[in-house]
Amino acid sequence: MVVVIKKGTDEQQLYNLKEWLKSFGVDINESKGEYETVLGLIGDTSHIDTDLLSSLAIIDSVTRISEPFKAANRKFHPDDTVVDVNGIKIGGGNFQYIAGPCSVESEEQITYIASEVKKAGAMLLRGGAFKPRTSPYAFQGMRADGLRLLEEAKQQTGMPIVTEIMDISHLDLFENVDVIQVGARNMQNFELLKELGHTHKPILLKRGLAATMQELLMSAEYIMAGGNNKVILCERGIRTFETYTRNTMDISAIALLKEKTHLPVIADPSHAAGFSRLVKPLALAATAAGADGIMIEVHNDPAHALCDGPQALTPEQFKEVVDDCNAIRDILNK
Amino acid sequence: MVVVIKKGTDEQQLYNLKEWLKSFGVDINESKGEYETVLGLIGDTSHIDTDLLSSLAIIDSVTRISEPFKAANRKFHPDDTVVDVNGIKIGGGNFQYIAGPCSVESEEQITYIASEVKKAGAMLLRGGAFKPRTSPYAFQGMRADGLRLLEEAKQQTGMPIVTEIMDISHLDLFENVDVIQVGARNMQNFELLKELGHTHKPILLKRGLAATMQELLMSAEYIMAGGNNKVILCERGIRTFETYTRNTMDISAIALLKEKTHLPVIADPSHAAGFSRLVKPLALAATAAGADGIMIEVHNDPAHALCDGPQALTPEQFKEVVDDCNAIRDILNK
Amino acid sequence: MVVVIKKGTDEQQLYNLKEWLKSFGVDINESKGEYETVLGLIGDTSHIDTDLLSSLAIIDSVTRISEPFKAANRKFHPDDTVVDVNGIKIGGGNFQYIAGPCSVESEEQITYIASEVKKAGAMLLRGGAFKPRTSPYAFQGMRADGLRLLEEAKQQTGMPIVTEIMDISHLDLFENVDVIQVGARNMQNFELLKELGHTHKPILLKRGLAATMQELLMSAEYIMAGGNNKVILCERGIRTFETYTRNTMDISAIALLKEKTHLPVIADPSHAAGFSRLVKPLALAATAAGADGIMIEVHNDPAHALCDGPQALTPEQFKEVVDDCNAIRDILNK
Amino acid sequence: MVVVIKKGTDEQQLYNLKEWLKSFGVDINESKGEYETVLGLIGDTSHIDTDLLSSLAIIDSVTRISEPFKAANRKFHPDDTVVDVNGIKIGGGNFQYIAGPCSVESEEQITYIASEVKKAGAMLLRGGAFKPRTSPYAFQGMRADGLRLLEEAKQQTGMPIVTEIMDISHLDLFENVDVIQVGARNMQNFELLKELGHTHKPILLKRGLAATMQELLMSAEYIMAGGNNKVILCERGIRTFETYTRNTMDISAIALLKEKTHLPVIADPSHAAGFSRLVKPLALAATAAGADGIMIEVHNDPAHALCDGPQALTPEQFKEVVDDCNAIRDILNK
Repeated sequence: MVVVIKKGTDEQQLYNLKEWLKSFGVDINESKGEYETVLGLIGDTSHIDTDLLSSLAIIDSVTRISEPFKAANRKFHPDDTVVDVNGIKIGGGNFQYIAGPCSVESEEQITYIASEVKKAGAMLLRGGAFKPRTSPYAFQGMRADGLRLLEEAKQQTGMPIVTEIMDISHLDLFENVDVIQVGARNMQNFELLKELGHTHKPILLKRGLAATMQELLMSAEYIMAGGNNKVILCERGIRTFETYTRNTMDISAIALLKEKTHLPVIADPSHAAGFSRLVKPLALAATAAGADGIMIEVHNDPAHALCDGPQALTPEQFKEVVDDCNAIRDILNK
Repeated sequence: MVVVIKKGTDEQQLYNLKEWLKSFGVDINESKGEYETVLGLIGDTSHIDTDLLSSLAIIDSVTRISEPFKAANRKFHPDDTVVDVNGIKIGGGNFQYIAGPCSVESEEQITYIASEVKKAGAMLLRGGAFKPRTSPYAFQGMRADGLRLLEEAKQQTGMPIVTEIMDISHLDLFENVDVIQVGARNMQNFELLKELGHTHKPILLKRGLAATMQELLMSAEYIMAGGNNKVILCERGIRTFETYTRNTMDISAIALLKEKTHLPVIADPSHAAGFSRLVKPLALAATAAGADGIMIEVHNDPAHALCDGPQALTPEQFKEVVDDCNAIRDILNK
Repeated sequence: MVVVIKKGTDEQQLYNLKEWLKSFGVDINESKGEYETVLGLIGDTSHIDTDLLSSLAIIDSVTRISEPFKAANRKFHPDDTVVDVNGIKIGGGNFQYIAGPCSVESEEQITYIASEVKKAGAMLLRGGAFKPRTSPYAFQGMRADGLRLLEEAKQQTGMPIVTEIMDISHLDLFENVDVIQVGARNMQNFELLKELGHTHKPILLKRGLAATMQELLMSAEYIMAGGNNKVILCERGIRTFETYTRNTMDISAIALLKEKTHLPVIADPSHAAGFSRLVKPLALAATAAGADGIMIEVHNDPAHALCDGPQALTPEQFKEVVDDCNAIRDILNK
Repeated sequence: MVVVIKKGTDEQQLYNLKEWLKSFGVDINESKGEYETVLGLIGDTSHIDTDLLSSLAIIDSVTRISEPFKAANRKFHPDDTVVDVNGIKIGGGNFQYIAGPCSVESEEQITYIASEVKKAGAMLLRGGAFKPRTSPYAFQGMRADGLRLLEEAKQQTGMPIVTEIMDISHLDLFENVDVIQVGARNMQNFELLKELGHTHKPILLKRGLAATMQELLMSAEYIMAGGNNKVILCERGIRTFETYTRNTMDISAIALLKEKTHLPVIADPSHAAGFSRLVKPLALAATAAGADGIMIEVHNDPAHALCDGPQALTPEQFKEVVDDCNAIRDILNK
């Protein structure tokens, strides 16, 4: 950490600051320049609050050199984490397709889609039971009933299930869920993250709409600090000024996160753009950029497509995406 | 709502779409152009899911003409909402100062600051007990103990207290809290919003870092849909590309929100910029732009300022802000 | 175009507005609702100034249904434009690599790199002579001398050259340049765009850092309105809140622009991320998303890499990118 | 400047890097940590290219501690710059109103508005002759004829004129213009900035839509590096994800720029929001935040308001803004 002290700072104040910083166990390397004094802090600075420091009157700027995340940091854990979901591996060279409907609607729907996406190559089944909706007047999901239907689809197809949690109080309902998803809007619901850190389940953590990569990693750190290292990160598009697309998929984040962390990184092309005809190009791009998996919404039945599937593909279209992504994986692995 | 249908759409599909739209009780005004067909939907479209609609293959674009928020909409409720907190009014021409420390630290600290800010003109006391922190290694607040200390400060000063809730499961602890704050990171924690809609307490709802004004109003709508109309909106800075400031205070939002909604709108200049010397100019600017109140962090004791108050003013500085804001209020009210 | 009129608008004012709108040759479809009146404008609305309209006191909102760009619009020109550069085709299924150094530095440097990238698969040579730099103290390029060296490299290798123009007054110097590049910072230098519309040279138009796709297309429209249809669009990353990368490559824009326009769309992965180890994943991703070409910085000599090539690959690394992109192209074309 | 070197870097490469850095005349303070080596560069680092440095394979990160701008930097020039326009002073406690129409349309229009805004308190007359428009089909301004009409209005009212330049080749036409404006879209048209650095006229430099404060100051530095120190900065709104307003006025930038630089900083509330009813609250807010002046669009004649003035006030409304801003100035100056 580098701390720049303003010109003309009182010596006693500077001394107090240095003593306080040393109390965190760091060494200080001081350089006095003509216009400022620079303190280089050496050692573990992760417990120093940069916001607090920045706010002090004598401080010009504070720059963190080492990343504030530790458990998630590849520097300290160079080997890829492989998350095992009932024997299905994600990360460390293992690429998986997670597919299913936006919302669980009925037993027929979810079991039909599950069997279709399984045939097409998906290894995990996704489906929304609790649905975070911008409007209180929109359909909020089948909730507990939806979880029950997902469990039935799991029994019939053998596919592990991935579904979103929206509140700690629902955690008991997720006993038979294999991967608990934290949605973009809850990425910094820290109480929820802490609680998930005490479970032993894999967590699929989606990047918030305006979250930096570092904040995503700090949210992963919340889960890992509780003892649960089974975290899968998911890039799903960030909010920018562009209006033709709902969000902007940050394709660099896929490559860069895999450099910064050992955790698996997957992509959700269904939500990144906001309409289904961009799902295929984005899925291919994310695969080409090095993702460890792809999560895609697949809908049911073209005849009912009207009320179905914003952003969703048909099973046939999903199969095409799988085939092309597999071919791209072969290029990367050759 | 205006729905543009792609050129060359099958007549039967178009018919199905129109029948489905009519099932929501809206009338349709259809115009066929050379390159597209435009459907104008007249009536209450708030139950139509534009995301779903946009995703259909035959749709070129969907534009919502009326705002999706109703209870919060000034069009339907032209008179200002005045939120009454133990006899202290906010909104409808009533301007209030909410002040106190970032975090509650001890009984001495909170009662001292409370009495100081009260003398300077604050009518409500703020203080963080549950603290949302980016890092799991940072101080998470005194939590339940902090709430207890706030209650003591309330008893000693008579000031109503404002403090942040982070999870539904803590709601029982907030029985003696006068205004429950929902932080920026929980602005779309919809389960929490729903639950707060069933309380009778005033809710101070902060705008999310990447939330549009419309999303902020939709989150207010979640609370109001549950029967609780005592919602105070708070602009606290949004995330942009700028790096010299932590966030960018959206000063236009203050004026514009008051046009779109009847709810009171206050500003939090302490968090908008990220350092204390911008608090005064931003507080004055927000007041000049028409805010209904200002929430400011004030710290304790300059001698302990080192570990205190990122972004916080001394009581004396706070007094200067109050005096100048009051003078600006006089100009606006003359 | 849909124009929503505020409730309670004076009839005479509304009449005046409608007469004025009709003077642009459009028909008006009027629907009166309880809270607003909606005017649907049918016909060519591209000459109506939506900014002006939005600002009128009686207007609630204005929504453009048809895109404001015409010459660049695929709706009116469904077939892909193929830009021919001395016999080398870009667009319409023709994919090209454009490669070369960030800046032209010497005859040896540019001819050496030209021959290396040609061997590796590049068909066009890029190199900066006029360099837009944020700081006036940074190297501004070899300027006219750099253009002369590019011409020599062209003579020796037969590769057409692509280089950036920064001001109209330099246009005469670009007589032997094959593709004139307009940089991101000049994307809305409208006087320059107009002038380039009167040349007959292909123009490589880079997207501005904060330009929407629609603005990029409107800038292309400026060039095309002058009679020059040989416009190649280039996605090179947009500015967002993320700080780990310099810019955020908008991968969706590649797929979506090709839907909105018939012009070729290429990607510049060297500038999108800001460091060289992301060039390969971004190049592969852009290819997978359907780009018509890739522009990449390649540096000279590893021994001199210190002062060379921010964001640049070695010729060997470039060759690997070409091979993998070609393999991805085969998947897309199968 | 702080340069972090990756763990495991070859000693010879590190030595070469340090020698190269020293060739810029800086001293190096080296600290070896367990996971990285940190080089602190002491001295004038403004000629070191951080982009280039960041891109080297052995570099983990580069952080500039001192700002890269020098002539514009308050650290080196603590006293406020006062720009004198024909005896009218801006900056250093001198606050001015610049007002006039969006576009110059006729002699009657411009002289009428000039006299009206002068009566209301404006000291400088603005008016667009060359108009940067997103669409090539929109009105591009009266251009040279518009400049001539502005000069006539200047002769009749004695008000200095402020108008925008769009290209170097027009510079001769600006001989009688008192303040040359550089628009947001040309803020990084570096060739234009350099040329303006060689004039002796005051330059009003608008912040680009996606320009950081530092980039704005670097563009000012381009002008100042040429010998012209008469630069007035102008905050006019930045591009964000919000859609209810066209741009987001960065109110913090006004206060913060005045801390970073000695140059005057004014605000343009007419363009920041995009509609006229937000002009007053934003003008008051900018004044309260410490701006050195306000530039506002004022239109002609309410009877012709239909085709007039997006974002513009009537002279009466402008007068109200002036009165309230003056009252706020009195509070700040008391």
